[in-house]
Amino acid sequence: MSYEKLPLEPLFQKIDELKPQFIERLERAVAIPSVSGDETLRPQVVKMGEFLITELTALGFTDIQRKELGTQPPPVADANLQLPPVILGRFGTSPEKKTVLVYGHYDVQPAAKEDGWATEPFTLVHDQAKDILYGRGSTDDKGPVLGWLNVIQAHNELGWELPVNLVVCFEGMEESGSLGLDELIEREAKEYFAKVDQVTISDNYWLGTSKPVLTYGLRGCNYYQIIVNGPGADLHSGVFGGTIAEPMTDLIKVMSTLVNSDGLIQIEGIKEMIAPLTDKENALYDEIDFSVDEFNAAAGSETCLHTTKQDLLKHRWRFPSLSLHGIEGAFSGTGAKTVIPAKVIGKFSIRTVPNIESAKLDQLVFQHVEAEFAKLKSPNTLKVELIHDGNYWVSNPFNDSFTAASKATQDVWGIVPDFTREGGSIPITLSFEQKLGVDVLLLPMGRGDDGAHSINEKLDVPNYINGCKTLGGYLHYYAKA
Amino acid sequence: MSYEKLPLEPLFQKIDELKPQFIERLERAVAIPSVSGDETLRPQVVKMGEFLITELTALGFTDIQRKELGTQPPPVADANLQLPPVILGRFGTSPEKKTVLVYGHYDVQPAAKEDGWATEPFTLVHDQAKDILYGRGSTDDKGPVLGWLNVIQAHNELGWELPVNLVVCFEGMEESGSLGLDELIEREAKEYFAKVDQVTISDNYWLGTSKPVLTYGLRGCNYYQIIVNGPGADLHSGVFGGTIAEPMTDLIKVMSTLVNSDGLIQIEGIKEMIAPLTDKENALYDEIDFSVDEFNAAAGSETCLHTTKQDLLKHRWRFPSLSLHGIEGAFSGTGAKTVIPAKVIGKFSIRTVPNIESAKLDQLVFQHVEAEFAKLKSPNTLKVELIHDGNYWVSNPFNDSFTAASKATQDVWGIVPDFTREGGSIPITLSFEQKLGVDVLLLPMGRGDDGAHSINEKLDVPNYINGCKTLGGYLHYYAKA
Repeated sequence: MSYEKLPLEPLFQKIDELKPQFIERLERAVAIPSVSGDETLRPQVVKMGEFLITELTALGFTDIQRKELGTQPPPVADANLQLPPVILGRFGTSPEKKTVLVYGHYDVQPAAKEDGWATEPFTLVHDQAKDILYGRGSTDDKGPVLGWLNVIQAHNELGWELPVNLVVCFEGMEESGSLGLDELIEREAKEYFAKVDQVTISDNYWLGTSKPVLTYGLRGCNYYQIIVNGPGADLHSGVFGGTIAEPMTDLIKVMSTLVNSDGLIQIEGIKEMIAPLTDKENALYDEIDFSVDEFNAAAGSETCLHTTKQDLLKHRWRFPSLSLHGIEGAFSGTGAKTVIPAKVIGKFSIRTVPNIESAKLDQLVFQHVEAEFAKLKSPNTLKVELIHDGNYWVSNPFNDSFTAASKATQDVWGIVPDFTREGGSIPITLSFEQKLGVDVLLLPMGRGDDGAHSINEKLDVPNYINGCKTLGGYLHYYAKA
Repeated sequence: MSYEKLPLEPLFQKIDELKPQFIERLERAVAIPSVSGDETLRPQVVKMGEFLITELTALGFTDIQRKELGTQPPPVADANLQLPPVILGRFGTSPEKKTVLVYGHYDVQPAAKEDGWATEPFTLVHDQAKDILYGRGSTDDKGPVLGWLNVIQAHNELGWELPVNLVVCFEGMEESGSLGLDELIEREAKEYFAKVDQVTISDNYWLGTSKPVLTYGLRGCNYYQIIVNGPGADLHSGVFGGTIAEPMTDLIKVMSTLVNSDGLIQIEGIKEMIAPLTDKENALYDEIDFSVDEFNAAAGSETCLHTTKQDLLKHRWRFPSLSLHGIEGAFSGTGAKTVIPAKVIGKFSIRTVPNIESAKLDQLVFQHVEAEFAKLKSPNTLKVELIHDGNYWVSNPFNDSFTAASKATQDVWGIVPDFTREGGSIPITLSFEQKLGVDVLLLPMGRGDDGAHSINEKLDVPNYINGCKTLGGYLHYYAKA
């Protein structure tokens, strides 16, 4: 893709020059253990929000608001536990400029040295030999959040005007279900977010470890449970085995009809809803930097269902899948227990893709499960229900925003990024798209091996610094589009 | 069955007369919370053993031995935790008399008022209106253990000679796997237990609530696990669903081939090993006091697989059954978790009956599971293994001991007892039979609704007192046989 380059070298040089300050800023952020999933650390989450307010203020953001979201709903130990605030801020309000909303989160996953970390998780450690920054939140999502702030600092020091109006929306509950965020977006859609033209999120990762990507699609997820009820209480298999209809027998029979060992969903009517694969889309997969070997390394086994990169990626991104997660109510411990569980609940989910309609899928699932149970002629009772659903998301990878991000990536990394989807879900993507009625771009900073939710979470320094350049460059290309 | 009655009326009258003392003895025993499963209560278990030593001594037992069993093997919180002692004692050593060994246990299941008990579990409460004794251990197994002591007291007070030599063997770990007992029986077989002619155990229950039974059979139990191994660690179903062979899919498929919803085992070769049903055995089932309604009431549902009492009892006692207990390693909590479990372990067991050979059964199970897994052509790996097995036990309900117990029951209750089996296992039965090479009789005292391991455990006073009479009468009839 050839394009007219913008003269961004001074910006990129300034960012290189500020590297020590950017690392130091990340160091101060990582030092605050803002674990949203640990109630006792809630003051630290709030402290991290206040850290951001201080930074935004110093950088010249205006209209900074600390939006309180109220009390956290149960289950909580402290019934008065307050949700951490959402931090909003603006940089520029020119009516001539486009407005870009950037979303990120300032809370992190739990971490403890005893879990197996090589370093203290809440101390940012710069491994100079590898040029890697280790620490909880380095890549998820403090690095990217600070990336946007770093871009503003570089502009300020250059005396450059930002080419767009920036709105920031940073939440503190992303790792704990983004409680309260949907309602906030709803409330602010015509208020704080009224003039937003585009939402850009840097909270995912490259597919691999060497090639930048832009992400234009996510699968949805419909999660179901099958409840089989039998006797009034758990029974002893010695006393009752052979004489009573056992709920586990029925549940296992029904669960065994949902998917085959080759991963093919056995529920009728689903595959007919899948959007046909066009030649144009099909061609995209050939270019993507990935391999079955890389997949096997990530999975820690040689149990991939596909032999080519293309098939593998299609089944990860654009075909539905069905996973059996487990059974509630049955024996799940080590060793042996001679129980006939009275009530068992099978859990499974289907990852959805265009054009699978959620309600229609529910109907097909319910029909299938009920028909398979009816075949058993069991005196037990069965109920099947949806626990939660979240729609798939697909954007147009050829729109202005993706094109701008692609150009910035080429400027910085010297390579055309891969256009990827993800197999999982980032529900907030769809919330912004639907509630604000604008396009969303997923522009990741870190690599596929950053270990976002694992021990030894890291962010490579080149990803942090080039990431800042890419975010900055993106705003310039998008402003011109 | 007509038989020559022995002149036992004075004994029975003495037992009636001593009723207040017998209840008071049980009260003192129940007051000691000898819960073997709670390490912190281990001193109470030991105290209960010492209580028995005191009682045995006062009644004139000789050669009383407190057999230490050493340190309890892991898992334990206290690595130096000592097993409670086995208490041995003799009453009479006449070479002219037969020697009967009676086994019982002085430990109990856990109990706490908060679990839903109507009364304090470790206070024996005599409900005078219902004539029922409530308390943990009342029926399991302190009532029956003290029953044997009560019989001696009655003889002593009458100035009667006991018609047999009695050996008692009381353990304190029955509710926690009878740790160390097998080895003790092995050690003492040619020592303390050298002259034993017969073992009698009062540690099970009537089938129902109104008719006494003698128990001549138990099913065995072979417990298996199927281990399916896939990826190196649990994976996210969004990222990996559809691309990796999921261990749960394979395990559920294999588990679904083991048994049908009507309870029929689907593993080839098992039914051919079942002993044929003779006319004589078949006729036994007609007389037994039981009903499908009673079964449904106990199960708390109308999900019985059989419509007649006879079929129901045969499937409980003399046909094998297969129960799927659960899955280790899969998601088992409430709610939704989008995990692809990396390693899952399915648990199931088969209740065995004559003439199913344990080793042959293992072979059939392994063959079946491996063949079903091979059909799936999965890249995952499967291993199937036996966790533990315990053989079935069947005695001759027409031997001297059962005949003596039947006569005593008729003397006391005025009715011929039902000859029953049980669906579950009492492994100690087989241990005594095999290691001492003598017959074993199961002679229950309590009723089927005593709630041995539940809240509000109870023993009806008529069962306690008539139970003592039956135990005493049995010794007299057995001595004459």
